[in-house]
Amino acid sequence: MGRLGEPAVVLLSGGLDSTTTLAVAAESGYVCYALTFDYGQRHRHELTSARAVAASCGVRRHEVVEIDLRAIGGSALTGDLPLPKGRDVEQIGAGIPATYVPARNTIFLSFALAWAEVLGSSDIFIGVNAVDYSGYPDCRPEYIEAFANMAGLATRAAVEGGTSITIHTPLIALTKAEIVELGSKLGVDYSLTSTCYDPDAEGRACGECDACRLRLRGFAEAGLVDPVPYRRGRPEP
Amino acid sequence: MGRLGEPAVVLLSGGLDSTTTLAVAAESGYVCYALTFDYGQRHRHELTSARAVAASCGVRRHEVVEIDLRAIGGSALTGDLPLPKGRDVEQIGAGIPATYVPARNTIFLSFALAWAEVLGSSDIFIGVNAVDYSGYPDCRPEYIEAFANMAGLATRAAVEGGTSITIHTPLIALTKAEIVELGSKLGVDYSLTSTCYDPDAEGRACGECDACRLRLRGFAEAGLVDPVPYRRGRPEP
Repeated sequence: MGRLGEPAVVLLSGGLDSTTTLAVAAESGYVCYALTFDYGQRHRHELTSARAVAASCGVRRHEVVEIDLRAIGGSALTGDLPLPKGRDVEQIGAGIPATYVPARNTIFLSFALAWAEVLGSSDIFIGVNAVDYSGYPDCRPEYIEAFANMAGLATRAAVEGGTSITIHTPLIALTKAEIVELGSKLGVDYSLTSTCYDPDAEGRACGECDACRLRLRGFAEAGLVDPVPYRRGRPEP
Repeated sequence: MGRLGEPAVVLLSGGLDSTTTLAVAAESGYVCYALTFDYGQRHRHELTSARAVAASCGVRRHEVVEIDLRAIGGSALTGDLPLPKGRDVEQIGAGIPATYVPARNTIFLSFALAWAEVLGSSDIFIGVNAVDYSGYPDCRPEYIEAFANMAGLATRAAVEGGTSITIHTPLIALTKAEIVELGSKLGVDYSLTSTCYDPDAEGRACGECDACRLRLRGFAEAGLVDPVPYRRGRPEP
């Protein structure tokens, strides 16, 4: 349980996982500060979703920080590689996909750490998940633990005394279906979220990228209907 | 010794320490990729210096990444707090000064890690120093070690196999005088560098901020003359 009224920084992309994570943090009693990145992602529509989610969850403040990861490159999400489409969910889990963005979680968590230090917060929430994307190096529990260890040595509190940083990963061991069930129980409005890596100009999902495939299967397994619009109608999961 | 022709990412602010670090990396045989941040620092003149230094050292590529740390705040260097002036060098070393930028080295090293991964490099250089600024949490050897440990779990190499990341800190145990001596021996042109936190429009140093005070004392102790212009003439160290 969160300490009632304590500030927490929550990484919010506007997708299903981070939105559920925000709901968990708020439900636990934290005053939430949502942090979103405009990093040159091809699916910039998620920024609109992040703003809608932050407003609907009543966060204390929502910062959208601009960082240009296209200068670094190396990912399909920043336009360097072709975007995988039409893969089976089983194929998605095997190996690191082209949508992996080098060191993205490390960069995002570093900014969260900076903001937490300024806010006097010792709690950071991130919606990483080790089940569906077990191949992502920076979604694994051992990585999160090493980041928290480093964070405990990185800030003013490390030399002046004070509470060290906890990295909360409430979704890390859940399947996508369990995440959807948890969020639904907490009253998350999933119609505000955006998961697709390749939405059209109106923000309608493609239904074929890895992120859509995993999302669709999660809703199906949870026995729920995904409320976001798909541009060719909702596909079979 | 570096492996001849291997790529290394070098964090370069355009100041005395990072410029010397770049010279050490180049001398060791690495092909250097310099990484600089336009982060909303009040002393933006250092970006001009970074470009001049990168060009004079023959780096393979120089990236200046824009990230707005003013959104995070909490530092005199991003305009949130008054800039300390006229302090003795002994005062500077006591406690964490207002010029500390929350989690800055963690953010910079995270971007360096991302770029290293894309370049296939396993070597990052950073000019941290634990002598003059012993109060900075993210300049201490134990912090660097924890970052390297986290980095070893953060990237593609951690799950697919490959060399893990080394964070090189060639200046960490040197005094400012020893750094100036080392750089001079390596042929560093310190007239290109910029250290001052409060330069005037022409880039001339103030001579009174903590960074100027430490720099001036370093040159004096090394028996060398600081070649950069000071706007009221070169002060006594």
